[in-house]
Amino acid sequence: MPHHRPVDAMAYPRFEGIRTFMRLPHLAEVERLREADLAIVGVPFDTGATYRVGARFGPAGIRNESMLLRPYHPELAVDVHAELSLVDHGDLPVTPGYLPESHAQIAEAAAGVLATGVTPLFLGGDHSVSLPLLRAVAARHGPVALVHVDAHADLWPGYYGGKDTHGTPFRRALEEGLIDPERSVQIGLRGPVYDADDVEVSERLGLASLSADALHRRGVDAAVELVRKRAGGPGPRYLSFDIDALDPVYAPGTGTPEVGGLTSVQALRLLRGLAGLDFVGFDLVEVMPAYDVGAVTQLLAANLAYEMIALAAVAKRGPA
Amino acid sequence: MPHHRPVDAMAYPRFEGIRTFMRLPHLAEVERLREADLAIVGVPFDTGATYRVGARFGPAGIRNESMLLRPYHPELAVDVHAELSLVDHGDLPVTPGYLPESHAQIAEAAAGVLATGVTPLFLGGDHSVSLPLLRAVAARHGPVALVHVDAHADLWPGYYGGKDTHGTPFRRALEEGLIDPERSVQIGLRGPVYDADDVEVSERLGLASLSADALHRRGVDAAVELVRKRAGGPGPRYLSFDIDALDPVYAPGTGTPEVGGLTSVQALRLLRGLAGLDFVGFDLVEVMPAYDVGAVTQLLAANLAYEMIALAAVAKRGPA
Amino acid sequence: MPHHRPVDAMAYPRFEGIRTFMRLPHLAEVERLREADLAIVGVPFDTGATYRVGARFGPAGIRNESMLLRPYHPELAVDVHAELSLVDHGDLPVTPGYLPESHAQIAEAAAGVLATGVTPLFLGGDHSVSLPLLRAVAARHGPVALVHVDAHADLWPGYYGGKDTHGTPFRRALEEGLIDPERSVQIGLRGPVYDADDVEVSERLGLASLSADALHRRGVDAAVELVRKRAGGPGPRYLSFDIDALDPVYAPGTGTPEVGGLTSVQALRLLRGLAGLDFVGFDLVEVMPAYDVGAVTQLLAANLAYEMIALAAVAKRGPA
Amino acid sequence: MPHHRPVDAMAYPRFEGIRTFMRLPHLAEVERLREADLAIVGVPFDTGATYRVGARFGPAGIRNESMLLRPYHPELAVDVHAELSLVDHGDLPVTPGYLPESHAQIAEAAAGVLATGVTPLFLGGDHSVSLPLLRAVAARHGPVALVHVDAHADLWPGYYGGKDTHGTPFRRALEEGLIDPERSVQIGLRGPVYDADDVEVSERLGLASLSADALHRRGVDAAVELVRKRAGGPGPRYLSFDIDALDPVYAPGTGTPEVGGLTSVQALRLLRGLAGLDFVGFDLVEVMPAYDVGAVTQLLAANLAYEMIALAAVAKRGPA
Amino acid sequence: MPHHRPVDAMAYPRFEGIRTFMRLPHLAEVERLREADLAIVGVPFDTGATYRVGARFGPAGIRNESMLLRPYHPELAVDVHAELSLVDHGDLPVTPGYLPESHAQIAEAAAGVLATGVTPLFLGGDHSVSLPLLRAVAARHGPVALVHVDAHADLWPGYYGGKDTHGTPFRRALEEGLIDPERSVQIGLRGPVYDADDVEVSERLGLASLSADALHRRGVDAAVELVRKRAGGPGPRYLSFDIDALDPVYAPGTGTPEVGGLTSVQALRLLRGLAGLDFVGFDLVEVMPAYDVGAVTQLLAANLAYEMIALAAVAKRGPA
Amino acid sequence: MPHHRPVDAMAYPRFEGIRTFMRLPHLAEVERLREADLAIVGVPFDTGATYRVGARFGPAGIRNESMLLRPYHPELAVDVHAELSLVDHGDLPVTPGYLPESHAQIAEAAAGVLATGVTPLFLGGDHSVSLPLLRAVAARHGPVALVHVDAHADLWPGYYGGKDTHGTPFRRALEEGLIDPERSVQIGLRGPVYDADDVEVSERLGLASLSADALHRRGVDAAVELVRKRAGGPGPRYLSFDIDALDPVYAPGTGTPEVGGLTSVQALRLLRGLAGLDFVGFDLVEVMPAYDVGAVTQLLAANLAYEMIALAAVAKRGPA
Repeated sequence: MPHHRPVDAMAYPRFEGIRTFMRLPHLAEVERLREADLAIVGVPFDTGATYRVGARFGPAGIRNESMLLRPYHPELAVDVHAELSLVDHGDLPVTPGYLPESHAQIAEAAAGVLATGVTPLFLGGDHSVSLPLLRAVAARHGPVALVHVDAHADLWPGYYGGKDTHGTPFRRALEEGLIDPERSVQIGLRGPVYDADDVEVSERLGLASLSADALHRRGVDAAVELVRKRAGGPGPRYLSFDIDALDPVYAPGTGTPEVGGLTSVQALRLLRGLAGLDFVGFDLVEVMPAYDVGAVTQLLAANLAYEMIALAAVAKRGPA
Repeated sequence: MPHHRPVDAMAYPRFEGIRTFMRLPHLAEVERLREADLAIVGVPFDTGATYRVGARFGPAGIRNESMLLRPYHPELAVDVHAELSLVDHGDLPVTPGYLPESHAQIAEAAAGVLATGVTPLFLGGDHSVSLPLLRAVAARHGPVALVHVDAHADLWPGYYGGKDTHGTPFRRALEEGLIDPERSVQIGLRGPVYDADDVEVSERLGLASLSADALHRRGVDAAVELVRKRAGGPGPRYLSFDIDALDPVYAPGTGTPEVGGLTSVQALRLLRGLAGLDFVGFDLVEVMPAYDVGAVTQLLAANLAYEMIALAAVAKRGPA
Repeated sequence: MPHHRPVDAMAYPRFEGIRTFMRLPHLAEVERLREADLAIVGVPFDTGATYRVGARFGPAGIRNESMLLRPYHPELAVDVHAELSLVDHGDLPVTPGYLPESHAQIAEAAAGVLATGVTPLFLGGDHSVSLPLLRAVAARHGPVALVHVDAHADLWPGYYGGKDTHGTPFRRALEEGLIDPERSVQIGLRGPVYDADDVEVSERLGLASLSADALHRRGVDAAVELVRKRAGGPGPRYLSFDIDALDPVYAPGTGTPEVGGLTSVQALRLLRGLAGLDFVGFDLVEVMPAYDVGAVTQLLAANLAYEMIALAAVAKRGPA
Repeated sequence: MPHHRPVDAMAYPRFEGIRTFMRLPHLAEVERLREADLAIVGVPFDTGATYRVGARFGPAGIRNESMLLRPYHPELAVDVHAELSLVDHGDLPVTPGYLPESHAQIAEAAAGVLATGVTPLFLGGDHSVSLPLLRAVAARHGPVALVHVDAHADLWPGYYGGKDTHGTPFRRALEEGLIDPERSVQIGLRGPVYDADDVEVSERLGLASLSADALHRRGVDAAVELVRKRAGGPGPRYLSFDIDALDPVYAPGTGTPEVGGLTSVQALRLLRGLAGLDFVGFDLVEVMPAYDVGAVTQLLAANLAYEMIALAAVAKRGPA
Repeated sequence: MPHHRPVDAMAYPRFEGIRTFMRLPHLAEVERLREADLAIVGVPFDTGATYRVGARFGPAGIRNESMLLRPYHPELAVDVHAELSLVDHGDLPVTPGYLPESHAQIAEAAAGVLATGVTPLFLGGDHSVSLPLLRAVAARHGPVALVHVDAHADLWPGYYGGKDTHGTPFRRALEEGLIDPERSVQIGLRGPVYDADDVEVSERLGLASLSADALHRRGVDAAVELVRKRAGGPGPRYLSFDIDALDPVYAPGTGTPEVGGLTSVQALRLLRGLAGLDFVGFDLVEVMPAYDVGAVTQLLAANLAYEMIALAAVAKRGPA
Repeated sequence: MPHHRPVDAMAYPRFEGIRTFMRLPHLAEVERLREADLAIVGVPFDTGATYRVGARFGPAGIRNESMLLRPYHPELAVDVHAELSLVDHGDLPVTPGYLPESHAQIAEAAAGVLATGVTPLFLGGDHSVSLPLLRAVAARHGPVALVHVDAHADLWPGYYGGKDTHGTPFRRALEEGLIDPERSVQIGLRGPVYDADDVEVSERLGLASLSADALHRRGVDAAVELVRKRAGGPGPRYLSFDIDALDPVYAPGTGTPEVGGLTSVQALRLLRGLAGLDFVGFDLVEVMPAYDVGAVTQLLAANLAYEMIALAAVAKRGPA
């Protein structure tokens, strides 16, 4: 079985070539994902957005800024290409403008990806895509511990008279038993909300949470500790990362920015703090290139995806 | 009955104040539209977009750039505020992410506006909104002569297995008898299409058309003449203007730009050439601020809306 | 008396509608401000700027980015719309290019606003507008404790041979007895200055100050403590916040950016630290949209204005 | 006497060096202007602007984009550096925020420049600067034939209760006898105005004009002919060029853009059509870098300045 | 042999998928180019640039904006995918910062591409790449008729003491006998030059030329006629298109912009006027995404590449 | 001997005048540098860049944003113009596209500058320019202690088969004995690298280093202490500062941005922590205006240059 790697940066300088993630091989046929340990999978759907819109261009934008990434992660002391066979699967099919239909398409295609045994790293798209992704993940692995990094809890029962949007996926997922609230945790919540219940809903539904304000006061290590305590035990784990967890200065290219968010250093440390845990899947959502400036959001997103890959590499390698 | 006008630019410089269109009075109650001859009405819906998305911010963007407009139109020799009582109604309610539901909301609200007797100038939104708008218009006035300025014919039977999008409104409108093809005309079509039938479909369905290429070769007067010949007779007339009729240099802030389009001078002349015709309604769609540069698209759109207002003013005044 | 609130975000999604602040009712008649507890009031004057210019578009820009704000403030545990009747008064009249005339217009109009008993939250405009605003405030309330957050002391005796600019308002205000130096404090000063006296002038004139460098070293709590110690006692209090207190990365859209400034998190904490104090007025100045990138400055300014509203809400509610 | 030229582009590539116009020698002492035939002179004053503001950065912006200009003008067959000793004088002193004081400073400094016998090419600044410039010019040369290229007539009696702004300079100049209306002409006027009188005022005051619309219909040659007929005879001539004569697509970086303006090709041809006429001075105003996109306005302005230099070169060389 | 086509836009909306040109299959192995009629080939080299630099990102930028292109060309009445098997070969290897080494790499790799019999459409890169490309082309086909569309003649003997740059490729090509001057033609030259000889050099070296100014005066048809007269006869033909032939407003994203250039409509007509001629290769150079605004340059470049593909399709189909 | 200072900001507002650094006198003749203590010297060369390119516009960009700097540094309590005679020498000649030739030009010109006894503050350009600069510095002063602030170690033996680039200067400098590894230190390294050896290479070659991650954990004071311990003793010292040491949010305008970098406050404190040490020269490299947003990178770079000037002023003044 081939071990897939990017093209060589010394033969083809990093500004060259077709923009797959990190210039990895593009394996469009789902069956061939068996050749890989981890696959980048775009989910360019944004019809669930309630304010700014355009995350359909997120996967292309993140790929575009992933050219500078290199094999060896100094802080985690791991060479991701040595440990993992990595590929880019391209994007899942969706029907823009039609949420229920697209969610069905996404769930079905994601199930096909998961069936190959590959670990998927999904690039959104708006956060509504996490619902069909979790449906596929839970169908294969059972209810998961959710590690959810975000400015918003996304636990609304429905918008505009009950409609599903990017503000509702985890409410649905809880109702459907896709995630195990006792093993789940939300990091980074902040900003004004509709009413006092919005603050209490996480806890009431059984999840733990650490607000951005608390993280700023208590430090990233407190967040790492909480995640490990809640989600670190046995059972499948899934990481869902909304780029708006970062402050708008670090991630202007997103749909519902909230001031007072994480810095890039905090986000990197949070992810590095999870080294050793294995995840059955990852998603990174709400990157919106049309609102980005200087591509800083897309570059940061590419780096966050790289950190997730490094987590998978460390988990596969096992204890050093 | 009050005659509504903007605030005075000599007392309140034009950078001041709340951003209604031209700083007109904001009459949010539909009943009060009886006080106006023409009303600006936003339709911030963009779930029908198939490529770039974000026209939901179009109405706000156009209002923002309308501050520089002044009362007197030198070429048509008409003072729009002397002839017309003008107001801004704000935006119609929609449900982002849900096309059929939103189309129903739009059609119902538009019917309410039309019932007051005011002439509406709708600011989109993507071009799919023209379908519910035409449903309301035809319900009140009967089938209309459509004057359609656009890079694309928007006559597709359906996308992605039959779905309605911003590429299908006029096919639906023809099927539903909302527009009279014999009195209708399309101006500005261009760009590569899916197959040869896309070029012939306008004619096959009974509409006349003049491509951008033909307009460039034969001049704007040929377009004016064709519109007047087709749509100039008795019966209700509706003008639907997609900003992508303009070249991407003049209108970068749009969803599916096509090179080789109209210049601003051609667009202005085309509209001025229709002076004397009265319209039962207007729409101006596909302005997408997130893709605009230097606000040129939004400024141009504000001016095109002003030209439509001037057409209504000239029509009301009658022959000079 | 009506209790004024924004339009409902579930019926009208947040990208809809006329851009008043938070989509609050627009009460242009000064007499009607009696119906409100707090009013947003634009002061779009920028002729006092000595380097970059364009803060006349500040109020419109801040309104534009205030759409995402929601009623409930989790950290202060207050629903601003439950506590306060809130409205947007629009902008005060000014004469661009004519500073003395405009200052007279501003002082007179501000006096009219204050006479209704409403608490004003003024959106500048360059910092020179604080002088006429303080004239109106002090005329009603007597000399105020000034809480001044800024990169610059704005205490220059005059520019270019004695002229008033945005660098001089508080020197004038001290000379005119509008502010009580013993109860006043400046937070965030930094950057190279003209000479050593510029550093000492605050203290020499009787104000206390904490530089940005000191704030970074000693923490936000030190700043909060200093403000409370100086300005926390009896007597009227006024908050003047120059957006350039923030680092240029958080607030690129301003006129005289200085590196090394506050982060958004520091600014939020500083304001939240003042909860319980009531203010007779607020201003937020020097937001310059033409220099903004990705609207981050305008979004942050909208949030800082929201924090000021929350301070007013907490003060009105009284001890929890 | 030295013949001043730019640095050599083959020794110092064109991206190198201090940004004087075309990298010409910077002669800051007014007396040394006797060494030059033509001098670039910045007038960075913008307090007269009524809408957008920021033309104070115009001279620096134009200089920045002048690096690509080269010596030989193919269409006019003239080497500007062979014919003319060219220098950059830097900027005249102004007092931002204070119009009357600044106009006095400008008039006095411009008089000093003119006294050296050099031909000045002034870079604005807003259009209000043309008034003090014409005061200095007329004091030396007597009333001039004005060739005025602009979207706006700038003949308003006053704004906001009689104040001078960038909309009034030529009304004042006519009243003061600085320009000879019978020999003067305005090219490019367009856009909605305040009332019908705004259209007739040029003619009523004795000037000739050709609107942008007429220019588009009748061709640039008609404009050239009109200018030559009016202003081509004996007596001093002055050229005042407002960049907003161009369409906003060609000149987005300006303060009061009007759609439907000239293209770059039309503007170049208009100026080239004046070859052989000598001018006692030139100004190029209303370039506003903060609103520019891709520096196209500044690059075009640098080229228009170059065309004016070429006109001076042709005039000095005399008939070929 | 497979007939290569893009993915289906009805199954995978056009914002989806890996960014090859038009989402064509990526055939990285040179041998597989035998399966194609025409191949997109990137040449991301920009070390030859003398002013702005960054065309190394040109191929990626053009690919990114090619998503909107569709199969059928209405004006030429040809379905490019029906006529041609089309693929994207990716980019040729280069060594950034090392011109002679890179030119050798380019020539060698281009020779390999040409050896498969495919028609290459090269996407630059700066214009210096045309020299090694012509070396490979002439080695296979003999001296070619050059159709050169550009603002600059690129015939300089050398820069900075004789060095090769993007201003010298065609001088070298003439000296090496790669192009036949008698059958060659340059279209679009303009702008100030170093001296009078720069204007005469084309003719002196035996090429014909039509300046932009002449094209504007005499019309595009004159340019088409000249090209057909010079280059339309027997023998191999090569088209080299520098995006700066367009006006900076249409192509701001380039390295040495010159005002007064072609409009998009003129450029499209020029290329369409060549229908029926077959070319042994094409290049499209000097697209510089970092200087683009709103992606208009990249979108236009993608369309110009499409026009070249259509020329190949018409030539293959033969007379209709 | 004259003491050189900037023009007076009260007579010429800071937006006025020719853009030398801080509006200092431009002394282009190298001999006249004897009149100065410290000279700004541009080195606009970027052919060594391996990814994004365009640092040739760095010196002009930094000068453009240096207008806001003022004489007195409050934290270091020093008036830079009182202590130092300061001038701007303009830019050194280079040959774009030709690295070895340009390096020779730079070394020779830098030697001429150093021969006058002035302390140079070089503004790059890409980091490859530090090699010829160090050659000139070491030729005059002997091997230097290098204080190197950067995201990257720039110690690669060669790229693309051994070529010199901006990733190799300090490897060459070590090999040539230009820097004393035992007295040298690297601050800010981070990001994924090619392999584990890239992390160890600094130490193996004898340099000390503190990664950005370590700096974030241990604080800026740890970095200051390390620098002082290594480089604080006797012997010449040289400071090389790559702007990408800063996080991409603070310095988006650079060529190879790495997330997780220093904040502006950390960078300022690091430099201020070195007060009292004298340096024989400084460079500040990799500022790339085409990728900047809101000029924040260029403004920060101007401030970092100012901090270096203040270091020179403190060193000259001697202990307070």
